[in-house]
Amino acid sequence: METARLETFSDGVIAIAITLLVLELPIPDVGEDGFWHAFLHLWPSLIAYTISFLTIGVMWINHHTIFVHIARTDRIFMLLNTLLLMSIAFVPYPTKVMAAFLEEGESARDAVILYGIALTGCAICFNLLWNYARRWGHLLREDADPVEVEGITRSYLPGVPLYLSTVVVAIINPLAAFILHAVIVVFYALSSTFWAPGWAKSEL
Amino acid sequence: METARLETFSDGVIAIAITLLVLELPIPDVGEDGFWHAFLHLWPSLIAYTISFLTIGVMWINHHTIFVHIARTDRIFMLLNTLLLMSIAFVPYPTKVMAAFLEEGESARDAVILYGIALTGCAICFNLLWNYARRWGHLLREDADPVEVEGITRSYLPGVPLYLSTVVVAIINPLAAFILHAVIVVFYALSSTFWAPGWAKSEL
Amino acid sequence: METARLETFSDGVIAIAITLLVLELPIPDVGEDGFWHAFLHLWPSLIAYTISFLTIGVMWINHHTIFVHIARTDRIFMLLNTLLLMSIAFVPYPTKVMAAFLEEGESARDAVILYGIALTGCAICFNLLWNYARRWGHLLREDADPVEVEGITRSYLPGVPLYLSTVVVAIINPLAAFILHAVIVVFYALSSTFWAPGWAKSEL
Amino acid sequence: METARLETFSDGVIAIAITLLVLELPIPDVGEDGFWHAFLHLWPSLIAYTISFLTIGVMWINHHTIFVHIARTDRIFMLLNTLLLMSIAFVPYPTKVMAAFLEEGESARDAVILYGIALTGCAICFNLLWNYARRWGHLLREDADPVEVEGITRSYLPGVPLYLSTVVVAIINPLAAFILHAVIVVFYALSSTFWAPGWAKSEL
Repeated sequence: METARLETFSDGVIAIAITLLVLELPIPDVGEDGFWHAFLHLWPSLIAYTISFLTIGVMWINHHTIFVHIARTDRIFMLLNTLLLMSIAFVPYPTKVMAAFLEEGESARDAVILYGIALTGCAICFNLLWNYARRWGHLLREDADPVEVEGITRSYLPGVPLYLSTVVVAIINPLAAFILHAVIVVFYALSSTFWAPGWAKSEL
Repeated sequence: METARLETFSDGVIAIAITLLVLELPIPDVGEDGFWHAFLHLWPSLIAYTISFLTIGVMWINHHTIFVHIARTDRIFMLLNTLLLMSIAFVPYPTKVMAAFLEEGESARDAVILYGIALTGCAICFNLLWNYARRWGHLLREDADPVEVEGITRSYLPGVPLYLSTVVVAIINPLAAFILHAVIVVFYALSSTFWAPGWAKSEL
Repeated sequence: METARLETFSDGVIAIAITLLVLELPIPDVGEDGFWHAFLHLWPSLIAYTISFLTIGVMWINHHTIFVHIARTDRIFMLLNTLLLMSIAFVPYPTKVMAAFLEEGESARDAVILYGIALTGCAICFNLLWNYARRWGHLLREDADPVEVEGITRSYLPGVPLYLSTVVVAIINPLAAFILHAVIVVFYALSSTFWAPGWAKSEL
Repeated sequence: METARLETFSDGVIAIAITLLVLELPIPDVGEDGFWHAFLHLWPSLIAYTISFLTIGVMWINHHTIFVHIARTDRIFMLLNTLLLMSIAFVPYPTKVMAAFLEEGESARDAVILYGIALTGCAICFNLLWNYARRWGHLLREDADPVEVEGITRSYLPGVPLYLSTVVVAIINPLAAFILHAVIVVFYALSSTFWAPGWAKSEL
């Protein structure tokens, strides 16, 4: 109840960021080879759209998972939440840039690095928000299950090194880093679905 | 209550997708024949806007109908709901493409096929979400009326073959498939209004 | 409670439509006469933005006013509400077109006519939704104050002829019709503020 | 409860305005100097995005703070809230203009002035809304803490002169005014976090 309006506002921002992604998909530039050739030529945009949609979707589930355990807010928590929302709302931009440059030689490398940095920023903000709530702010519900709380903390730890690793891979091979982003989000979506700790499983 | 934030987030995504459609309507390119000639020349955009708005509107009603009968969620359900939202949030793109190519000869055929495939994807996601909730997930409310549940299941079945049939028609005649999309959505809107099973009628 | 999710969805669509208006404001095309000259040259866009923002704002208040008196929904009501939302979500388009053509001679007339027709469509949908709820659908709350219900019915009646009159004025003088739109929305905003019937006053 | 739908609608508009900011970030125009040179060349857009995101974020917190103390609404309050939402929803436009002209000599000055005027407008609307609710409308909760109410009133007072001062600074040096905007929002974010009066602290 106390966190209700903060959740509503966050849901709004995340829902808009995820839906705005579609605006960046370009119209196929049909030439002599026909529509489908031009459409499939947009594969960087289409796959980047899918990766970012699923990534933001998993972020929303994570955001939800945090708030299930939050009983109170304070202003530092609200500031950290605003920073988190800024990092999520920014994602459509590196998505668009990555899609635009993925077939542009050297710029491809840099555009995938930018995307990796942006997602690293999101992962940092998630860790800050959760650890502040858990340790410094004492904002958790008194009846929060310690096993679940520990599970969330552990599941957030690999995010930052994982996304930093995509930056390293991108330096060597941007396309491999692009594929790695797809692998990470599928892994996250499946892991949070099938063997994650947390609120949803406990509701079964 | 348990599904409240999932509904809020889904409402947000669907509301944004349906409202973003208007951004794709182009300014009339007024020439010698005057404003109204140029405006009416935009008929593919205007009619595609109307079809997609009503289609997403009917999808929102369907989404609502599902959640009326849901008592619990689990993570597979949330993953399927995310896929459904991705398929709905994608609709503005094939709408824009179909409108852009409807008078472009051979590409018209392919653009209408793309639109049909996109809506087939939505129909598949609806069937997956509903049947998972109903059969595998056991997520329905204990007091859900079996007649209504059966009615929803039955009303979702024709969606996939119906939208696939527009793909077949588009191969023969894209304009006919375009009109078929208009007929389908009017039929869906009226049928869900006047002789549908489900929650709304039971409230009368 | 029964109408909660319908209100949330409607709020979302109206909030998005009103906020998307800002995307259509063009960057000033600064030439020799400097920034402010170019900025003020955008007056059709700036004033059209203000008129449409206030118009949609008043529509949101009207939508709210209707739902305060609604106890139940049925599917015809939901269909009419979808049509109303479609007419409101469409408003950014004629706003953009009117702003683009207001200084374009003969097209100015036609663009202002288009805007007037679009708002007439909104007014028709409001009357349909309210009168269906009130008379045919029997959806009102049993304790709805008849004086307020009557007041709403009466206050919706002039909308259609008023907006149709802007179409007639636009044929004679588009700029006068543009000013008339501004006058109408200021009148509506003030009248709903200072001498309207309805829910808000009764809460004082 | 009485203010619930007004808050939902306001949350929606503010969430959309804050998220739309990302659409205005341009794709880097990569030339001979490579991707990062082109990307860093976008610093006016990137910093303007950050300033406006944080500014609207602080405005949302302020809006929330007001509504925590509101027990009732009336139509004058709703009209003032609509004007406030219009001023907030407008912010993406001067943001885009300021970013576009920040390196354009004399126009830079004027674009930063426009941004300062827009934020001054927001500050005026906040003062109008709050003081109406507090003094003329008698809309506060009976149990509102007078110390907090007084604290909010005092914390809103400097907004208008502060933003007007950026206009004066911009006349002398637009870049200095741009930096001043960044300083103001960081100060606001930190002050509302660490030594603000109001609802959040009282919840600890």
